[in-house]
Amino acid sequence: MSEKQSADASTLNLREDSRPGDREGIEAIVTATGFFTPAEIEVAIELFDERESKGPASGYHFVFAERAARLIGYACFGPIPCTQHSYDLYWIAVHPETQGRGLGRAILAAAERAIRERGGKRVYIETSSRAQYRDTRGFYTRTGYELEATLRDFYAPGDDKAIYSRALSPTD
Amino acid sequence: MSEKQSADASTLNLREDSRPGDREGIEAIVTATGFFTPAEIEVAIELFDERESKGPASGYHFVFAERAARLIGYACFGPIPCTQHSYDLYWIAVHPETQGRGLGRAILAAAERAIRERGGKRVYIETSSRAQYRDTRGFYTRTGYELEATLRDFYAPGDDKAIYSRALSPTD
Repeated sequence: MSEKQSADASTLNLREDSRPGDREGIEAIVTATGFFTPAEIEVAIELFDERESKGPASGYHFVFAERAARLIGYACFGPIPCTQHSYDLYWIAVHPETQGRGLGRAILAAAERAIRERGGKRVYIETSSRAQYRDTRGFYTRTGYELEATLRDFYAPGDDKAIYSRALSPTD
Repeated sequence: MSEKQSADASTLNLREDSRPGDREGIEAIVTATGFFTPAEIEVAIELFDERESKGPASGYHFVFAERAARLIGYACFGPIPCTQHSYDLYWIAVHPETQGRGLGRAILAAAERAIRERGGKRVYIETSSRAQYRDTRGFYTRTGYELEATLRDFYAPGDDKAIYSRALSPTD
C-alpha cells in the first residue's frame, strides 16, 4: 500500500448528503453499539427513510462520518416545529470499534455547524437516566450541554428522561 | 322547538371516531381561539390528516366533542415512541363561544380515559410560558397536572416551554 493510499484510508470524511449503503451502515452501527432495542433501531432507520423519501421537508438532516468509504458514525437532527430556532439532535451514534477517539465529538461539532448554518441557535438532546447511558450523559456534559430538565419515569418506571440543551454561539 | 329537540341540542357528545366535517370543524375551532399562528393551525390539521390516512398507526388519537351535531372542541393525543406507557396530549382546544363551561375539563377527562384504556399511565402536556397561555396553564394545574420542567427560550427568546405531567391512577 502506498503512503498516499494509507493517508486516504485514515482520513475522516464528514458529509451531509447520503450515499448508497448508508441505510445498511446506520443499521450496522446502531446494532453494533448494543445500546438500542429492536424498536429503537427501527426508529433510527425510519428517520433515514423519511429523509430519503421526503428530502429536507422531512425535517431530518444527517451528518455521516466515514473513513475509507466505510460509515463509522452519524448524527440525525432537525428543526423543532413551531419554534423559532430550536433544533433536536435525534440521534448520534459511533461504531463501537471506533469509539473513544474523538469521533463522537467531531460528528457532534459537524451537526452543530450544520444547525448554525440553518439558523439554529439552541440544540436539545434527550436521553435516558439509566446507568447504561452514563457515558453518553458524560459526553454531552463535556461537549457543552447542560442538563436542563429531568422527567421522572418518562420511558418507564425508574427510567427518567434527561433533557440537555446548549445555546450555540455564532462563533463556536 | 319541542322539549325533546331542545334536550338533544344541549347534549354533549364525546366520540373518538371522526365524522365528515371534523377537518373543517378543527380548523374553525383553532382559528376562532385566536391563539394559534397559521403554522400552528397547519400542524393541527396535519395531525388530523395523518390520522385519517394512516389510522391508529399514525400514533394520533382524537376525542371529538359535539353538541347539536356541531364540533365545539377536541383533543389529540398519542403514545410517545420508545416509552413504556407515556402519552403526549398534543392538542386540546375548545371553541371560544363555549369556553368556561367545563367543556375543556370534559374533553381532557375523555382523553385521559381513552389513554388509560390503551394502557397509558403518564400524560405529558407542553405549553408556552407566555402570558397569553396563563389561563391554559391554570387549567392544567386545576385538572391535576404538575409543572415538571421548564425549558428556557425553547420556542423563542423569552418564550419558554413548560412541561406538565400527570400520573394516571387506574381509578381516575
